[in-house]
Amino acid sequence: MVTINKNYLKLPGSYLFSTIGKKVRVYQEANPDKKIIRLGIGDVTQPLAPAIIDALHGAVDEMAAAETFKGYAPDLGYEFLRSAIAKNDYKDRGCDIASDEIFVSDGAKCDSANIQEIFGVDNKIAVCDPVYPVYVDTNVMAGRTGDYNTVKENFDGIIYMPCREENGFLPEFPEETPDLIYLCFPNNPTGSAITKDQLQKWVDYANEKGAVIIYDAAYEAYISEENVPHTIYECDGARTCAIELKSFSKNAGFTGTRLGYTVIPKDLVRDGVMLHGLWARRHGTKFNGAPYIIQKAGEAVYSDAGKAQLKEQVAYYMRNAKVIYDGLKSAGFSVSGGVNAPYIWLKTPDKMTSWEFFDYLLDKANIVGTPGSGFGSQGEGYFRLTAFGTYENTVEAIERMKHL
Amino acid sequence: MVTINKNYLKLPGSYLFSTIGKKVRVYQEANPDKKIIRLGIGDVTQPLAPAIIDALHGAVDEMAAAETFKGYAPDLGYEFLRSAIAKNDYKDRGCDIASDEIFVSDGAKCDSANIQEIFGVDNKIAVCDPVYPVYVDTNVMAGRTGDYNTVKENFDGIIYMPCREENGFLPEFPEETPDLIYLCFPNNPTGSAITKDQLQKWVDYANEKGAVIIYDAAYEAYISEENVPHTIYECDGARTCAIELKSFSKNAGFTGTRLGYTVIPKDLVRDGVMLHGLWARRHGTKFNGAPYIIQKAGEAVYSDAGKAQLKEQVAYYMRNAKVIYDGLKSAGFSVSGGVNAPYIWLKTPDKMTSWEFFDYLLDKANIVGTPGSGFGSQGEGYFRLTAFGTYENTVEAIERMKHL
Repeated sequence: MVTINKNYLKLPGSYLFSTIGKKVRVYQEANPDKKIIRLGIGDVTQPLAPAIIDALHGAVDEMAAAETFKGYAPDLGYEFLRSAIAKNDYKDRGCDIASDEIFVSDGAKCDSANIQEIFGVDNKIAVCDPVYPVYVDTNVMAGRTGDYNTVKENFDGIIYMPCREENGFLPEFPEETPDLIYLCFPNNPTGSAITKDQLQKWVDYANEKGAVIIYDAAYEAYISEENVPHTIYECDGARTCAIELKSFSKNAGFTGTRLGYTVIPKDLVRDGVMLHGLWARRHGTKFNGAPYIIQKAGEAVYSDAGKAQLKEQVAYYMRNAKVIYDGLKSAGFSVSGGVNAPYIWLKTPDKMTSWEFFDYLLDKANIVGTPGSGFGSQGEGYFRLTAFGTYENTVEAIERMKHL
Repeated sequence: MVTINKNYLKLPGSYLFSTIGKKVRVYQEANPDKKIIRLGIGDVTQPLAPAIIDALHGAVDEMAAAETFKGYAPDLGYEFLRSAIAKNDYKDRGCDIASDEIFVSDGAKCDSANIQEIFGVDNKIAVCDPVYPVYVDTNVMAGRTGDYNTVKENFDGIIYMPCREENGFLPEFPEETPDLIYLCFPNNPTGSAITKDQLQKWVDYANEKGAVIIYDAAYEAYISEENVPHTIYECDGARTCAIELKSFSKNAGFTGTRLGYTVIPKDLVRDGVMLHGLWARRHGTKFNGAPYIIQKAGEAVYSDAGKAQLKEQVAYYMRNAKVIYDGLKSAGFSVSGGVNAPYIWLKTPDKMTSWEFFDYLLDKANIVGTPGSGFGSQGEGYFRLTAFGTYENTVEAIERMKHL
């Protein structure tokens, strides 16, 4: 008789974004004349840049002729893309990462979900709180945690590192020593950034403890300040303790196009085994490569035309971020984020809970955001707005919020 | 201190296709004047059909304008594709599968690798021998097996069901009762097919034992005989015991384009839990949807033009299969497969081992095939040739083999 993976039953039933979707539907049906502006989910709205569109059409044409048709891709990605990544994202920044340390995938969400598979079930994980839910949920599914604790509103057996106003939204070294440390900077959901000096301390800590840092740099393109590292490999010693995850979703609008990559330096060894080899085995066995035409689109991200167009696209969203940040600040809200990230994190006014503010904002201003408590118990009393809407909608939303 | 997933260390180090690649490189370097014909790996060679190319270009254009741009896809697939699949692959064949029982993915390899995650680690799996290695390797990685037994040349703790000439290359019910049963028909690597009556017996067996069948129907498009089922849901009772995996790789040439789907009927319940819900949770947490433009290409597979063009493409490969099958038979080889599948499975002559015949064929005829022993110990003494080459190369290869 087959048994199921009972770890799945530990996951709470209702999902943040489906609950939001339901509330918005109910409100819209009751108020069909209201124009709702969505600044909730982290999805982009600008079309793919012309250089990327050209590359996609060109690759599609290649698939139409026997001489240029592409079948199975190399497991770990086409060399043209891996070397473009190594050059632009690492070598040009003075970081020592080779193209064969880069694993092309169908997105950073999948990588951040799958990476835990190469580690033992006995490892203790540490996450920021609030946190992107995928890190936690996939470790629950793998049996690396205890049950969901309904009083503490988090999982037993996970080390949660609170990130609140009091500590500048940056995690502190936990009392209990973790084995796997998930860090995401610039951060989703708080929009906070970490300086190079601060990140160096985490790298030193991980090397000292024999821990591994899973560094999610999905929002790196939004960094505007000088002392904020674009990759963890800017820190000394990161090659022996850090895995980095990168996405094409937010810098190039690939949320529906799907492309990402993971970096595992060959110096990263645990239990006498190169993690690079384990991930290569996982990739080769449980994945079959990103589509050729999508990898060609990824290559175009690094062309001169692509770079120029995407710089404009990121600037478009960051103008939105500034509109939100400045507007809310002048209206008396307590806000953070938005400078090196497309997320603005605000404290709910009048001690409202995150969900109370969600309902209030939807009702009074017809704006949809994301309750901070949906990202963890330490997100309670906070609220996330994203800069991924259109400029016009963003301006209108903030005007409405000023007059709440 | 982090620990690694030590189950990975149980996997034997050298991979079948990398060993083949190495041998071929060495031979070609030593014999630069020889024209090597590859009938080894199961990759297609014909370009994407015009209807699919048109759909891809159209979808790329949609991604270029804000009004039609697509961000995050629905987790489980776009409804336009799920309903095209439900209609064409199930309802039109009289099978009761609804569109919301279909989960769109980036390919059947990934699905066949990931599906085991929703089951407990304590389950006993049964596989055919020879077998597609992904079923076994992913269960090893998940800790569902013992060590690799170098004497028996297989893993302890797995039920292997021999498929050899003596039993018509069809598995028999094993002595020990399995929990999860992997079946692939038409079969890779043997090219054998199962009749509807024979498959019905497996469905009845699974329902009686409370087992679940993972049915890999990736080669369904190559079925030419009347009594061979195109889907396991042609069998009574399959909705309560079977999960079906389908690919766009072999019927539509998507090996480098990546699209597949999994069917989990809502009647499939174990431990009081719908497996459909578990897989939806896995999909939503560890995957982020297949790219929009690829899903539009998948929809074109079911258009009238797409169907007509792909029928021709499959016929092209099956003409190759007939050339191989008839040619080798007339030359005195013992051959099977090739009638409902793009694979021809032949017995090595003169009691050569599979690898001895590989070397012999490469040396004497400059043809690359796949040693049967690479798919399991019961594949020893067999050899796989594929029909996915060009017609001209296939004809030439068989002429050479006739004169060995």
